[in-house]
Amino acid sequence: MNILVTGATGFIGTNLTRELRKEHNLFILGQFEGDPEKLNLPGCVMTDDIPQLASYIKEHQIDGIIHLASLYLTAHTPEQVKDLVSSNVYFGTAVLEAASLAGCVKWFLNTGSIWQNYNTKGKEYNPVNLYAATKQAFIDMAKYYTDVFGIRFCTLKLCDTYGPNDTRRKIFKLFKDYSESGEVLKMSPGEQLIDILFITDIVAGFKHLAMLLSAGEDLEAEYVLSSGRQIPLKELASIYQDVSGCALKIEWGGLPYRKREVMKPWKGTILKGWSAKVSLEEGIVLFNG
Amino acid sequence: MNILVTGATGFIGTNLTRELRKEHNLFILGQFEGDPEKLNLPGCVMTDDIPQLASYIKEHQIDGIIHLASLYLTAHTPEQVKDLVSSNVYFGTAVLEAASLAGCVKWFLNTGSIWQNYNTKGKEYNPVNLYAATKQAFIDMAKYYTDVFGIRFCTLKLCDTYGPNDTRRKIFKLFKDYSESGEVLKMSPGEQLIDILFITDIVAGFKHLAMLLSAGEDLEAEYVLSSGRQIPLKELASIYQDVSGCALKIEWGGLPYRKREVMKPWKGTILKGWSAKVSLEEGIVLFNG
Repeated sequence: MNILVTGATGFIGTNLTRELRKEHNLFILGQFEGDPEKLNLPGCVMTDDIPQLASYIKEHQIDGIIHLASLYLTAHTPEQVKDLVSSNVYFGTAVLEAASLAGCVKWFLNTGSIWQNYNTKGKEYNPVNLYAATKQAFIDMAKYYTDVFGIRFCTLKLCDTYGPNDTRRKIFKLFKDYSESGEVLKMSPGEQLIDILFITDIVAGFKHLAMLLSAGEDLEAEYVLSSGRQIPLKELASIYQDVSGCALKIEWGGLPYRKREVMKPWKGTILKGWSAKVSLEEGIVLFNG
Repeated sequence: MNILVTGATGFIGTNLTRELRKEHNLFILGQFEGDPEKLNLPGCVMTDDIPQLASYIKEHQIDGIIHLASLYLTAHTPEQVKDLVSSNVYFGTAVLEAASLAGCVKWFLNTGSIWQNYNTKGKEYNPVNLYAATKQAFIDMAKYYTDVFGIRFCTLKLCDTYGPNDTRRKIFKLFKDYSESGEVLKMSPGEQLIDILFITDIVAGFKHLAMLLSAGEDLEAEYVLSSGRQIPLKELASIYQDVSGCALKIEWGGLPYRKREVMKPWKGTILKGWSAKVSLEEGIVLFNG
């Protein structure tokens, strides 16, 4: 297949494109910021100009699009609102508009977040933060293109993710840095539950859903990739220390919980035909290399 | 009350602000394009800079916001996608962000469209066009602000509208222009049903909902302003000619139906405590002046 990927320079993107290129013709769409050289891939285009992008998609007869590009902000400043809308609502819409003009794109795999469903048990939308709201807004924009042009569309909602070479300031990166420096790590009281997945499981999920989409399988509007395990942050720190042998000095309660802290991650419908393969303990070993 | 209005220079905006200023302190927010002199109102600010707007809202202790500003496009070109997202998703989000920073805003009256619910009987979202999709996307963005900052939010979905001095190329304006010129008006086969409301009824609806919002009444997430009547376009032309005495030469079927032509307008929940007062026949007389 000819697959176009956005957000290819991010943590998931670099890992996913490495796998996808083994089986497919891969094309990369950047939104000016990313570093295409990092990818070392042919067929990279940097644009958000719709007619130009439409020509590119048509020229390369793109079958499907995997949309990973996203501006992720746990909390935003007023100055970042424009960028959030531009990156997370406009950019994806521009890609879909270009796809609709090109006419060859059959499917679009969108990346969502379980943060779109704060403290909800059913499918109700309730955003943790403005980032999650932009994720939902884009899905509404996409509905126009899927209804009018018949592009198959499915959203894969992600829980927390980790893996080697992850430069994001996420939980295991923090643990690693603080265990190396020996400094005291101030954290919230630590009772919040964490659902975290190793990168190879995430990559397998994307590949699997892309396959289902291209095969024309009957799909729901969205699926979740979840570890199936919800572990209190405190326990996660203790498992990390046990498995890695790295000692941590954590001051639990040294920081308050965040506003709208997710105490219990949302459980949606797990992607059919997929399940997590890497246990937390195996993942921590792989993470620490 | 101190009320901030966006989109005050549009057809509904000019009529609504004229009424509101009789009872409230009115403040006008422009998004650079509109002509503030048209309004002849004090307290007009032209900005989409969030901190500046937040200061303005706080300084004038705005109680409520009526958000009419919208880029309306029946069909869009690729070049207009950015403007649609910017005007219909970003601008309203910027106003809500500013309102959340200012802290004084209690309610936000949003303007929607029955085009958000194409061919649906229930409440399901299904956009007629990309314009309708941006309307839905903004509601998703707003949910973050209403949940986190407790700003009361309600969407008023509009059907078709008309009235004197309406410069938009809408149906009665077309009828008027063609009856004056005597030219042949090419139209679709004309079987689509039309739900159209006179401007004073629209204005009354906005005023009524603003009152319900400020009174803290228990409200649904959205209401519709509807004439309660669905008339085939062909019959509408015949009523127009009978009432106005203006003859029309219409070539029915001279044009095809639009892609996704709305054959039967969506019926949502009519705004409680409000009903249309001006009949179609009275409205046509008033329209023709």
